[in-house]
Amino acid sequence: MITISSRKNESVKATAGLVRSAENRKAQGLFVVEGARLCYDACRSGVTVKQLYFTQQAQEKYGEYLQPLLEQAEETFLVEPHVAELLSSTKSSQGIYAVCRMEPLRPLAELDPNGKYIGVENLQDPGNLGAVMRTAEALGLQGLVLLGDCCDTHSPKALRAGMGAVFRFPMYYGESFVQEADALHKKGLVTFAAVPDAAAEIVTECAFPKGSLLLVGNEGNGLLPETVAACSHRVTIPMLGRAESLNAAASSAILMWEMVRSGGM
Amino acid sequence: MITISSRKNESVKATAGLVRSAENRKAQGLFVVEGARLCYDACRSGVTVKQLYFTQQAQEKYGEYLQPLLEQAEETFLVEPHVAELLSSTKSSQGIYAVCRMEPLRPLAELDPNGKYIGVENLQDPGNLGAVMRTAEALGLQGLVLLGDCCDTHSPKALRAGMGAVFRFPMYYGESFVQEADALHKKGLVTFAAVPDAAAEIVTECAFPKGSLLLVGNEGNGLLPETVAACSHRVTIPMLGRAESLNAAASSAILMWEMVRSGGM
Repeated sequence: MITISSRKNESVKATAGLVRSAENRKAQGLFVVEGARLCYDACRSGVTVKQLYFTQQAQEKYGEYLQPLLEQAEETFLVEPHVAELLSSTKSSQGIYAVCRMEPLRPLAELDPNGKYIGVENLQDPGNLGAVMRTAEALGLQGLVLLGDCCDTHSPKALRAGMGAVFRFPMYYGESFVQEADALHKKGLVTFAAVPDAAAEIVTECAFPKGSLLLVGNEGNGLLPETVAACSHRVTIPMLGRAESLNAAASSAILMWEMVRSGGM
Repeated sequence: MITISSRKNESVKATAGLVRSAENRKAQGLFVVEGARLCYDACRSGVTVKQLYFTQQAQEKYGEYLQPLLEQAEETFLVEPHVAELLSSTKSSQGIYAVCRMEPLRPLAELDPNGKYIGVENLQDPGNLGAVMRTAEALGLQGLVLLGDCCDTHSPKALRAGMGAVFRFPMYYGESFVQEADALHKKGLVTFAAVPDAAAEIVTECAFPKGSLLLVGNEGNGLLPETVAACSHRVTIPMLGRAESLNAAASSAILMWEMVRSGGM
């Protein structure tokens, strides 16, 4: 095992670059997991751990989480606390970081025509993205579809909010829903656009078939009009209080819940 | 108007103390709102604005939000950016801060026997607390009940997550649910404990009457056993995926949704 005591160490600098920049992550196909439990989850979920960084203090405190990581990581580095700081994106770091390999997002053509999926279009907040993913996994959906220009699924904040869902949950990507809608409908998926529109179908009265893809849009602007138009159905949550206050994570939790609830539990 | 250019100014120091410490807020009955939109919402919602701090840059950029605040604040201070920094709890501050008067929490005896309420017991995360409050308001519930030792509803993080719900949404406080349960039941409220227990009533099959109080517990430990025992009903969300992954904000969104949905929308 190598001990690093310099903040100018090249491996540390490269890893810090992955923490800070989505572009770096994308270019290298790598991302950084921080924290004992989350690193352990990544390792247990079968994610490839390229490098493991940890402090002496972390080893003493989180030995049991560290064990499988030490066995599986291709390289391990003991780092001094002032070096570990460079890798942290939180105020109170546990001093454990794993550089992991990112799995490529799957194409929409691989969606199962009998699966239930949530799709997000141009979602910008990594906390919302992580929360949607975590809820989708908890409710037993088959996967998350990312459309257009969403924030990075592997940023430190999205990873924390997702609580490890990103390591396990199938993710699909499509640049433009409109271009793929026909193919999805032809294979049997029924698509639903969530809209704040009283004229849309009320979600509680909507029958979601076995093969359903429900789309929610950007926090401020919702779905693109052309995406709404290309969906089979438009659904809405009837609002009893202040409609504009339901945030993306809560509204998508309710919508996903209705989707899995539909047809009996 | 007074211009402040020293970081040692006594008003600034006192206000910074309110930003940092829940104890200070409680002792003085004051809290600090940060950001143009949120300060404007506080003012528009009828919250008493004791002091307003803003930078020259903020005045140029957020003039329309600032106007009603300038009219209503008892004292206004133009502060230099290096002074404004002391009041900020975010990385990218807009340079507008309002010191507001906190309304006292209402006693449980004031709950309307025909209202629907969400209660949280020992909730620790301010982001979760804000999210629950925001969703409860959006879904048209009548109020939020805080039980035991919850985190501060007026911390910077709770305020941001709540998106102003705290300025408008009725909040009640009870130190111990067990001690008040009888009185609540006698006045006609039916109480529901949310539990991760397959033997509990399934929330989709549960009829929530007009006067309902639904309780959710601490993020890690759930409700206290004595609280669960003192409730009229135990309800659960049937889990199809990974039960442990549904976070407090998402599970309470689903539960509140079922509560308002019950009896037709």
